[in-house]
Amino acid sequence: MTDTPDATPDRRPGGRTARVRAQVLDAVRAELAEHGHEGLTMEGVATRAGVHRATVYRRWRDVGGLLVDVIDAAGEIDWQPPDTGSLRGDLTALNQEIQQSLVERPSFAVALMAASFHSAPAARAQTRLWTDRYAQCEVLVERAVERGELPAGRPTDARSLLIAATAPLYHELVLLRAERDPRLPERAARAAVLAAAAGAFSDAGS
Amino acid sequence: MTDTPDATPDRRPGGRTARVRAQVLDAVRAELAEHGHEGLTMEGVATRAGVHRATVYRRWRDVGGLLVDVIDAAGEIDWQPPDTGSLRGDLTALNQEIQQSLVERPSFAVALMAASFHSAPAARAQTRLWTDRYAQCEVLVERAVERGELPAGRPTDARSLLIAATAPLYHELVLLRAERDPRLPERAARAAVLAAAAGAFSDAGS
Repeated sequence: MTDTPDATPDRRPGGRTARVRAQVLDAVRAELAEHGHEGLTMEGVATRAGVHRATVYRRWRDVGGLLVDVIDAAGEIDWQPPDTGSLRGDLTALNQEIQQSLVERPSFAVALMAASFHSAPAARAQTRLWTDRYAQCEVLVERAVERGELPAGRPTDARSLLIAATAPLYHELVLLRAERDPRLPERAARAAVLAAAAGAFSDAGS
Repeated sequence: MTDTPDATPDRRPGGRTARVRAQVLDAVRAELAEHGHEGLTMEGVATRAGVHRATVYRRWRDVGGLLVDVIDAAGEIDWQPPDTGSLRGDLTALNQEIQQSLVERPSFAVALMAASFHSAPAARAQTRLWTDRYAQCEVLVERAVERGELPAGRPTDARSLLIAATAPLYHELVLLRAERDPRLPERAARAAVLAAAAGAFSDAGS
């Protein structure tokens, strides 16, 4: 491996530039999951990716740049919220997906959260990604209102409902480091739906 | 400052050993809050505390030892859960306390969470502390059952209720880095109480 910069990169989608990015981001994910944020280095990523070090420095500048791009890439995935036919089913499926990402070892999701405590650009990228995902999930609440599962006359704050449904997963598995509880995704979903039905996320609720 | 070890320490409560511990732990809290986990060093703590470096090394061994002791010290405080006369009031007061600890800048609580991603002993100490605090708060649920605020025939899982009430605070303020919302403590408390009243945390709930 040399430090000679690449020749003019091919920027067509699916071209050489895209392939290099895919290789580098795969390497970032693997290094993060195996060694955590503290073990992430430009050199380690370049070696693992089989890409010139100079290319990695020129394009991503530093470890913070790699973290931001790996989070942005997660946001580019064509992710779709679940559609099971009921709000409780949808939130349970969402929670199962979240639980899986948090309990797998090594967990890329947990490594990213840890990293975002130490990198302001990574924290901002993560906030953007989460904001987008919760916005995408608001359709679950809209569909529930259309199906008559939620009080129609008192608009439900979709984001608050989604946070209430998903927060216990992050709290138990990331912050409290509890053992995986296979019933938690369904229980947290059920609690949020019962609260919503009682008007907890409507301004007029009491 | 020299590296000469202390003479035989005075181990009476309130004696020299206790004073040195208090000075060192105050310094750990201040350094953590100001510089974060990555800026915490044995030397920085010793200098700030005005204590011999050798004493700090002998008694706490490394930065992980300092973190564990500062978390254990938080557990030794005579903390009492709120008692406002209603479950919703108690959970709101608890959430206000949590919110305050998370939004103050610098936040010692957030610095400790960040540190626990990088130190297994600190993570274990933090899990112990949180487990104790949630156990202490179970009395809020017992009192609510006695007051007839919760279904008596279907025992409520106190821990699940407490997690549901408090998790949105941590999720919004620590992981999503949302702006402080002065209504959140009360709203999260209200949602958990409505869910509990509907049987969300009872095994027989549906």
